[in-house]
Amino acid sequence: MVLYDLVNRSKTHFSPNSWRVRMALAHKGLDFEVRDVLFGTIKGISPEQKLTIPTIDHDGRLVTDSWAIVQYLDQAFPDTPRLIAPGTDGHVTQFFQYWVQTTVHAGIARLILLDLHNSLEPSDQAYFRASREKQFHKTLEDIQAGREERVDAFRKSLQPLRLAVGSHGFVGGEKPCYADYLAFGGFQWARISSPFKLLAEDDLVHGWFERCLDLYGGMGRRDAAAT
Amino acid sequence: MVLYDLVNRSKTHFSPNSWRVRMALAHKGLDFEVRDVLFGTIKGISPEQKLTIPTIDHDGRLVTDSWAIVQYLDQAFPDTPRLIAPGTDGHVTQFFQYWVQTTVHAGIARLILLDLHNSLEPSDQAYFRASREKQFHKTLEDIQAGREERVDAFRKSLQPLRLAVGSHGFVGGEKPCYADYLAFGGFQWARISSPFKLLAEDDLVHGWFERCLDLYGGMGRRDAAAT
Repeated sequence: MVLYDLVNRSKTHFSPNSWRVRMALAHKGLDFEVRDVLFGTIKGISPEQKLTIPTIDHDGRLVTDSWAIVQYLDQAFPDTPRLIAPGTDGHVTQFFQYWVQTTVHAGIARLILLDLHNSLEPSDQAYFRASREKQFHKTLEDIQAGREERVDAFRKSLQPLRLAVGSHGFVGGEKPCYADYLAFGGFQWARISSPFKLLAEDDLVHGWFERCLDLYGGMGRRDAAAT
Repeated sequence: MVLYDLVNRSKTHFSPNSWRVRMALAHKGLDFEVRDVLFGTIKGISPEQKLTIPTIDHDGRLVTDSWAIVQYLDQAFPDTPRLIAPGTDGHVTQFFQYWVQTTVHAGIARLILLDLHNSLEPSDQAYFRASREKQFHKTLEDIQAGREERVDAFRKSLQPLRLAVGSHGFVGGEKPCYADYLAFGGFQWARISSPFKLLAEDDLVHGWFERCLDLYGGMGRRDAAAT
């Protein structure tokens, strides 16, 4: 099992959607080898298929997109703990992914996107700037500006996650589930890409994130935080 | 099976948490009789127990709190479709409830709470005003003020729900699940209590809400919208 993953110029792995898959692989007890790519070398993975990161290669079969990868892993390894239930329960987990996308990822982007740009290999920076500035209709500098005044609103927007992890430790209860990994990916993306203090130390979400970093032998800590 | 439910002075049922339970009962195909109460007469349901609305009475057993009621129904009627899965999947549904509480209910309250007050029986209004003004640290008039300028932000906050129901029709996929009923309760609370136009007609969330109103023989439409 190979996981193609993005690195920055410190060779740390920052992709939030890859972290979902890394945690999913570890949850299932599946070994994997990581092959590092840059934004500029993704197209070299396969000459035929249009791929994004994360992509896995399992016995020569390329699967791309985190949701599709986790569904594939559930099917290919039916004796491992399932992460996305078929039917209704899986759809509620998909809602959670939409919440992460629109609240966690979109919120964090507005706080760290310039730092993230600066952490990239210089050869990736022009592509990253152009694509994100087109998406946000603003310069990276303007996207990140005023973050000290805006971080409180971001922290407030995490209230449903705070209530969930405050009740039981993880979104999934006493043990983490795929929803935890979906949210974890966003905060890990920030941890690796920016020294900005996203969460207060006494925030229940901070405690939950530290617990996620401890999972699977501290897998998430092996990639160093930005300084 | 008896459901104790709140009515306003038009004798329509506005409690968002009761609507969750009504939809849950219908989803399971369980017949129930409704007994109307006012805020001021809840304490008359049982001299011994401290109850809130919704409360059900099933063969003399009183169960209160919507989450506890639905879990009770899942256990008491194991041959009916289950609404809250045990373990992890149920916890993700509980996250959805937290999202409804912090985004849908809290957002709607700031748009309609004075209208809701005015729709109540006069004997309930003083209690309602005092308890909500204490909770929000504002008068009902101030809570609702400026809603025309604030409704866009509320609509934007629904984006994860919009993505979910836009993909499949319901949060649960092609058929509704308890998450749909959790969100439905909030919008039904607004529909019954206020003529304020919460959603644009072309919003996917509006289309989903209309589909929810159609469920179970149009059960949700039997209580008339506020005019």
